[in-house]
Amino acid sequence: MKRINLGIIGFGNVGSGVVKILREKKAYLTQKIGLEIEVKKICDKDIVSKRNIAVDKHILTRDPRQIIDDPQIDIVVELMGGINPAGEFISEALKRGKNIVTANKALLAQKGKELFVLASDRGKNIYFEASVGAGIPIIKSLREGLVANKFKGVMGIVNGTSNFVLSRMSQANCTFKDALAEAKLKGFAEKDPSLDIQGVDSAHKLVLLSYLCFGRFVDFKDIFIEGISQISQADVNYAGELGFEIKLLAIAKKEMDELEVRVHPTLIPRKHLLASVSGVFNAIYVSSDLAGDLLFYGPGAGQMSAASAVVSDIVDLTQDIKAGLFRPTLNIVEDKSIKKLRRIDDFESRHYIRFMAVDRPGVLAKISGILAKFGISIASVTQKERSRANFVPIVMITHSAKEKNLRAALDMIYRLDVVKEEPVAIRMEDL
Amino acid sequence: MKRINLGIIGFGNVGSGVVKILREKKAYLTQKIGLEIEVKKICDKDIVSKRNIAVDKHILTRDPRQIIDDPQIDIVVELMGGINPAGEFISEALKRGKNIVTANKALLAQKGKELFVLASDRGKNIYFEASVGAGIPIIKSLREGLVANKFKGVMGIVNGTSNFVLSRMSQANCTFKDALAEAKLKGFAEKDPSLDIQGVDSAHKLVLLSYLCFGRFVDFKDIFIEGISQISQADVNYAGELGFEIKLLAIAKKEMDELEVRVHPTLIPRKHLLASVSGVFNAIYVSSDLAGDLLFYGPGAGQMSAASAVVSDIVDLTQDIKAGLFRPTLNIVEDKSIKKLRRIDDFESRHYIRFMAVDRPGVLAKISGILAKFGISIASVTQKERSRANFVPIVMITHSAKEKNLRAALDMIYRLDVVKEEPVAIRMEDL
Repeated sequence: MKRINLGIIGFGNVGSGVVKILREKKAYLTQKIGLEIEVKKICDKDIVSKRNIAVDKHILTRDPRQIIDDPQIDIVVELMGGINPAGEFISEALKRGKNIVTANKALLAQKGKELFVLASDRGKNIYFEASVGAGIPIIKSLREGLVANKFKGVMGIVNGTSNFVLSRMSQANCTFKDALAEAKLKGFAEKDPSLDIQGVDSAHKLVLLSYLCFGRFVDFKDIFIEGISQISQADVNYAGELGFEIKLLAIAKKEMDELEVRVHPTLIPRKHLLASVSGVFNAIYVSSDLAGDLLFYGPGAGQMSAASAVVSDIVDLTQDIKAGLFRPTLNIVEDKSIKKLRRIDDFESRHYIRFMAVDRPGVLAKISGILAKFGISIASVTQKERSRANFVPIVMITHSAKEKNLRAALDMIYRLDVVKEEPVAIRMEDL
Repeated sequence: MKRINLGIIGFGNVGSGVVKILREKKAYLTQKIGLEIEVKKICDKDIVSKRNIAVDKHILTRDPRQIIDDPQIDIVVELMGGINPAGEFISEALKRGKNIVTANKALLAQKGKELFVLASDRGKNIYFEASVGAGIPIIKSLREGLVANKFKGVMGIVNGTSNFVLSRMSQANCTFKDALAEAKLKGFAEKDPSLDIQGVDSAHKLVLLSYLCFGRFVDFKDIFIEGISQISQADVNYAGELGFEIKLLAIAKKEMDELEVRVHPTLIPRKHLLASVSGVFNAIYVSSDLAGDLLFYGPGAGQMSAASAVVSDIVDLTQDIKAGLFRPTLNIVEDKSIKKLRRIDDFESRHYIRFMAVDRPGVLAKISGILAKFGISIASVTQKERSRANFVPIVMITHSAKEKNLRAALDMIYRLDVVKEEPVAIRMEDL
């Protein structure tokens, strides 16, 4: 029976999960795919610590060249993370005729464009199912299952940490700080969770989703990113009273001949499926021209979930290799009807806005007057009960308005002496 | 550029959708897959009526042999539906070395076992993505995306008509009859909707889901099937008050060394994602050992949605053919830990039950006494307000109980002279 040799770079959480699956399910996989997968070498800087799977010492190495330069290794699985040297290892491996599996969204978001070109030039593939939504087969679905579709938009809850925090704030009625502390305690947030809660991790994944849906590799720095750390318990509550949940969404969508790519907290109607995605779960909602609106949901992180996706990539590559020839991943075709990225100023959406204002006749008239001046019409207003403080919250839902106009209006309103604190504005998505 | 020739048998709704996609997206697909797909012949008994896509007269035929016997045709796409002659055509085509794409769940549920064996013997493939959940790439996900996983269970809302009816009853507070009439009016139900509302169509799809998840081709007649026509407006309301939605679920799950396969109306908690699946949408919820609990959601029917799935199957086959050799679909491996199918008597679940009973002291004691005698404990009871009638509804949620015991208890309760009407019992799923 033909044997495919793997080299794994990065023997951490996901790496040891992959080895565990390949070991414990060897017979199952062999029966399914008609060949054997052999882990020939594993590279990590730490080859001493125990993992949840025991491996022969002689396959462990600290030297990545032992994998990259080994002509018997067919597939290099990069699971070390980080930009460099991971990117250099992948590029070296491609040049030596290896196919690649990686879960490294940060790397792909920043260097993916050149790596995909290199792979294609060399007649090799880079598979990356685990990089978005862990075990959810979203990348295969977009690329293969929906191959004939063009996409109008993709909208994802793709960061488990942020979603856990926002879900807890909503369900347990607690502050951002408390929810984040709980996430850390439960192992759902890293010691330094800033990449997650600031939306950077979501934006990495959005680069890949946008590439898959629109064939455009968006420059990471062109993505509008706003995190969740400024979301207050009060706004979660008011949104809830109005029938909305606040979720951190990664959005790529076509508006006329422009593409919007943005990550920010978003009010979505509670009756929409995305609003029911709680805790560390992820979901990706896709609008396609033929298959309609689809949702893919599952755990967005976790050792075995990510390893499941890595192994499915490995299996796909083994089938290509078994066929004895390069079977290119279905080409990604650029949507030529997209002329440019939309600038943040030109984003249009409804907004949830909250002002803290003096509870005095005429204040509401002043505020709504300024909004009207900028062409922003109000769909609903709720003035909350007066508290002991002199300032009361005024919560509004606007009709669709340009970001530029909204910001200008809020600036002017903030300068009113009857308004305390900077106004809060959270974008909404009509779903 | 290499060209792959198709023959399409069945030029109805989905068939013309497939032709439309292949025509209108020719350039897009060619760029993606690196070869041309040509519709060489289309067979239908009606080659006169206009479709939403015009085709050259000379490729239309009434004679299926013109497709089956044409050595230049690589792929036969069967979209005529029905058991025979569709099954004979597929089997003839396989014997003549063609690969098959079909959306025919009724056929596969009944003759799939032999057809898959024949295909494998001949080194050919049968792809059937459109047969479950239309454009939702559930089959590819189960087979390829989750290739390393073993499954604990799969649970699907896989019939749009039934789901529309149940959603309407819940949302518009109407009767089954009215909801069904509305479904017919909107084109969501066929003139004779019995296969849909009696659960037969869901059971066809369950055979396929169960085959994909457990590698067992369940005999269609061994599936327990209960439809939705007996679901009353009252029960939808009472379930709603208790926080549940009633959905027609197709369920295959492993319990110890037995497999349960069943289709029936089911109470599920309103906060679960499946409860939010409204109208004609479908969703398949899968529990896997590595990737965890996943949900796949989308329109479960529709011309272009089904055609999208058919085209993705065609594309997969073209890639196999392009590789110049038989690249078998990943083998489906039987879960040997399953020893047998569980008999309906041995199903265990919680139940929603409703009695119409005389509003008199001691009645509740009698009823709960009988339940206790059969080892059925009660989780909650609600006795509804007395109406002008002498009989009041008593609604109970039981703890988990064996089907056999529950039925025996209900029989005995029904024989009480204080109980009017046959008691209602609806299974629940803990999600």
